Formats: sequence, structure tokens, C-alpha cells
Amino acid sequence: MANEANCKVVLAARPRGLPAPADFRLEEEPLAALAEGQVRVDVSHLSIDAFIRTTLETSAYHGSVPLGGTIVALGVGRVRESRSADLKPGEWVFGPLLAQSCATLPAALLRRIDVGRAPATAYLGALGLTTGQTAWVGVREVAKVRPGETFVVSAAAGAVGAMAGQIAKLDGARVIGIAGGPEKGHFLTGELGFDAAVDYKRDDVAEQLRAAAPDGVDVYFDNVGGPLLDVVLDQIKLRARIVICGAISQYGGEVSKGVRGPSLYLRLAERQSRMEGFAVTHFPEALPRAEAELADWLRDGKVCLPEHVVKGLDNFAGALATLFTGGHTGKLLLAV
Amino acid sequence: MANEANCKVVLAARPRGLPAPADFRLEEEPLAALAEGQVRVDVSHLSIDAFIRTTLETSAYHGSVPLGGTIVALGVGRVRESRSADLKPGEWVFGPLLAQSCATLPAALLRRIDVGRAPATAYLGALGLTTGQTAWVGVREVAKVRPGETFVVSAAAGAVGAMAGQIAKLDGARVIGIAGGPEKGHFLTGELGFDAAVDYKRDDVAEQLRAAAPDGVDVYFDNVGGPLLDVVLDQIKLRARIVICGAISQYGGEVSKGVRGPSLYLRLAERQSRMEGFAVTHFPEALPRAEAELADWLRDGKVCLPEHVVKGLDNFAGALATLFTGGHTGKLLLAV
Repeated sequence: MANEANCKVVLAARPRGLPAPADFRLEEEPLAALAEGQVRVDVSHLSIDAFIRTTLETSAYHGSVPLGGTIVALGVGRVRESRSADLKPGEWVFGPLLAQSCATLPAALLRRIDVGRAPATAYLGALGLTTGQTAWVGVREVAKVRPGETFVVSAAAGAVGAMAGQIAKLDGARVIGIAGGPEKGHFLTGELGFDAAVDYKRDDVAEQLRAAAPDGVDVYFDNVGGPLLDVVLDQIKLRARIVICGAISQYGGEVSKGVRGPSLYLRLAERQSRMEGFAVTHFPEALPRAEAELADWLRDGKVCLPEHVVKGLDNFAGALATLFTGGHTGKLLLAV
Repeated sequence: MANEANCKVVLAARPRGLPAPADFRLEEEPLAALAEGQVRVDVSHLSIDAFIRTTLETSAYHGSVPLGGTIVALGVGRVRESRSADLKPGEWVFGPLLAQSCATLPAALLRRIDVGRAPATAYLGALGLTTGQTAWVGVREVAKVRPGETFVVSAAAGAVGAMAGQIAKLDGARVIGIAGGPEKGHFLTGELGFDAAVDYKRDDVAEQLRAAAPDGVDVYFDNVGGPLLDVVLDQIKLRARIVICGAISQYGGEVSKGVRGPSLYLRLAERQSRMEGFAVTHFPEALPRAEAELADWLRDGKVCLPEHVVKGLDNFAGALATLFTGGHTGKLLLAV
């Protein structure tokens, strides 16, 4: 039987550094009346994304959550009630459901998903806007990887990195993943079929990269920023492309200050190279194509993305912290 | 009568920070015998360029000058003797003549210049490889400025900056120059016809830029790097292009360490923008077109570039230091 109350995660205090349990609070509220055009959705899973951390700051690009406000998150769920002609009870949807058990919001903010084509959680992972589609846009539309090129990706065992490397591989590149520890390395070269792995937790990262890419790097898909970005900048080829997808090494602390810029950025001039940032939301016209292609690949077993599922809204803080400490492999989800 | 000895500037010590007179030494040597294919050139003027500073480091992109070696510089001069069928005595040439009074080198390293089309010094300035042609390539081939765009250039009263701004203006952009002090500001808006000037020596640089470019910046042609790059990054529009031509603020010190990276580089991702470095030498196919167009503009008075001429090889250290302290306007030359 459906719950008659909504349980939500609200911001109790602005995190300093890694998000901690005390920064969040669970609250219960009665379900609001459903207005015309709105639907009520039982939230099934939330996507744990780095952008969530940035919305906890006061000045944030993705908008800032006020103290006491519900934490922003994308999710999938099932329509329970509807006052919209566009969605019917029982249908699965994707959208900004927030960190709560039951979302009441305009149907226009949601998109129906076909759980016959792929499992619902895949719409947050392999096919997801912030995961598979982000990786697809970065590889295809920004880096424009060509066959035979050397493609390096950081946070490679994470959701975006794992997908980006697999897409570049399908596009004919030689793929090197950077991740922490031998276990993740085996995941990259074993399960994902990458050509080589670099362990950033060892002291000899530059040497490992040089050994894996003796002729240099054509494309660096960067999810991490920090000192690693300089290590790769120092080994780019002529006409390299550095795709800035994120800088997760810099998000754990306070985002609005203290980001470390790449001190070797002048390699861009020396080596006729470019650094290009992107956000998936700036490529609306490419996304249906991306999703369709990713769904085909997933069905045909050409890409895979393990899911790391944390259970329960009360574990939200821990799930978010895991994203920054790298204690997971693949897509990090919260099962509501 | 031609000198029977060559007077050259050699590296006495590797500069720490700004080049100082004690880092250089004048030496005289007898003229070497002329080998087959070589020419002897009386050096007229040298181009004082930022890359010279980088060649004084031990690990330098442009190659490193050994202690006791002659300082590398581009220059113009007149052929005195020739053992090459390609060049005749009396002809004017451009090339890597080095900091010396009389250069003996293979004719193949030199290019004949037409001093009927433009004065010899213009081949180091308005038409020069490291000045006008660099600016032309950066504006046309890298930034690809479009009419109506807001174009910002740093070190705008310097040679490359002054040319870049004028070229962007001819291409229909609204041009804002960043330079130090009100005098240079007047030079930009008065003599060069820029739309606005920003004085980086004042405390309110960000506010000045916001006032001059209220809708944000489409293109930033950066010769400076350092904190100013972050100021502009914070005000870029969606789909902005940052052209990295140099980072003169970072060259005064030791180049190989301590360059400050742009801490706001994540604006590139937030605003779907790119940062692209270039070196003029990577665009060989564009250069004849660049030089021809620049020569026409110079002849027709559509561009101008004042020359700041320091006299005498014994003043080489001071001339090079001037480049970094900004004590000049326009093209800095050394008359040999």
C-alpha cells in the first residue's frame, strides 16, 4: 500500500569538505494535494551525481539548495496518481524527483521511460543523462575521437569514465583508464576491455602513463582535475583535446574556492591543443540519438555498467561521500 | 665600411626572475669563413619576443641556450656576402639572426623580404611572424571571431595584443583591450580605435570588465595568464573561446616551475567553452595569406603599430626586461 506521507532528505548544514550525516536530516511531511497538471511519483532510485555536491554551496552553477530545502537529485520512479493527460498511473518516469520517497511535481518536468527496452535503473546509468549520455556527448560531440587515437579517461571506474572509455573503444580508439588501486585496474582491462590501466594511487603515475601511451595522448576525458590533469597535460600530443567533464578531486572541499587550476595549461599553446568544457544539457539535439544508441549497445552487450546500490534515504550522506572517496565501481545509485 | 668582427650577446648566467645585465655578456669574435650555401648578414634590428626569455631556461619548449651560447632572436638584416645562389649581397632578409651584429648562417634559414612593400622593421612588427602573423592566426584561425562578438585582449598595448585587437575590429568585433595605466588606455581607444580599455593596475578590474562587456565575453585573446585569466574566465559567455597565445605574467619568473594555472577553468564546462593554445609555427599554410593581408592593411592605414626601439646590443638585457615590465607601447625592437 502506498505511503500516505513523504519522507525527504533536507539540508541541515552546509558541508565543509566531504558530506557528513550531520549535514542532512530526514523529514516527514503529509502528501500535498495534487494540482492540475501535476503527478505523484513513488521514487524508486536516485542517481548519485557530483553536481549534487555543488548545489550544497551558496553560490552554485547548478543552483543552490537553501538550508532546510530538499536535496536535488535525478531519479526514476512510478506514477502513483496523475492530474496530467500526459502520464498515467503505473508508468515509469525519469526526472528531477529530488531525494524523497514520493515526489509531487508537474508532469512537464518528467519523461516517460520504456522499462521494456532497458531496466529502469539503466535510465540513470548506462543510458542516463548524467552518465551514459554525458559520456556519449563528451566522446562524440566534444572530443570527436578518431580510430587509432590514444584516449585517456580519469575516474575510469566511475560511471561516466567507464562509459566514456567503452564508447571511445567502440569508436576505434586505444583506451587507457586512470583509477585508484589494482582492483579497479582489473575491472577496466578485464570487464570493460580497456587497453591499459593507470593506478593514480601509486607514486609513478607519470611513468605509468608514459608506458601505457609512449607516443602521447590524443584525447583526455577528464572527470577529476587536480594534479592528475597536469600529469596528462605534460604528455599530450600535438592537436590534443582535453575534455573537461568534471573535476571531482576539487568538489570534496568547498567548490567555490580553492579549485586548483592546471599549472601546465601552457602546454596547450606549445602543442596546439585545446581544452573544452561541456555540460550535457547544452546538447539537447544530440540526446535522443545518444540514448537510442546506448540502449542498442546495452541490449547487444557492447557496453556494460555495474551498479553500486546503496539502500535507504537515511544513507544518503554516505552514498554521496562514496562518490568522492571512490569506494564504488560503476554507477552509484540510492534505492529509495 | 663593414666590421671585420662579430659582436654577440651571450648567456653569462641563467636569469632568476627578470633578466638583468649581469646575465648577459658581450663578446667579440673574428668572422668565420663562409661555407658553401651560407651568407653573411649585417643585422639591422632584432625582435624582442617573450619566447627569448623561455630559451634561457634549462628545459625550454623553444630549445635552451647553453651558458656561453649566443642569445636566440629573430631579426632583419642585409646580406653582405653570399655563397648561395638564393641570396645576393644587398638583399634584405628575415630569420633567426641571433643577438649579434653579423650573422653567418645557411641561406636556407632566411627569407628575402621586400622593403619596397613595407619598411624592414615592419617585417618584425605589423607583418612579423611573432607579432602581426601571430595575431592574425590567433584571431582568424583559432578564435574565428564573428561580427558583433565581444573580443577581449590582454597586453593590448603590446605588439601582439595591439595587432590582435585591430584585426578583430576589422572583422567586426567589439574590442576591449586590457593594459596597465590610463596612458595605454588612451592609446588603445584613441590611436588603435578599440571600443573600450580596462586598466589592470586598478583594483576593480572585474568591475571595469563587466562595465565594458555587460553581456559577457565571447573571445579572450590571452597574452598574459595569471590572475587576469581568472577574471575573464568568470565573465565568459556560453560558447566562448579563450585563445592562449602566451602568459607573459608567468615568464618573468622561472618558466619551468610556478606557473599559476587558471583556478576558474571549470567555467569552461559550465559555459560550454573552450581554451585553445596555439603557436604560429603550426599554421605554415596560413602565413603567406596573413602576411599579404597585413601588408595591404598597413599600406592602407587600416592597422598601425608603433615601434619602441632600444639602441645597441649592450642594452639587450634592459630591452628584454622592458617586455615583462610593460614599459613600452607597440613593438619592442633592438637596433643593432
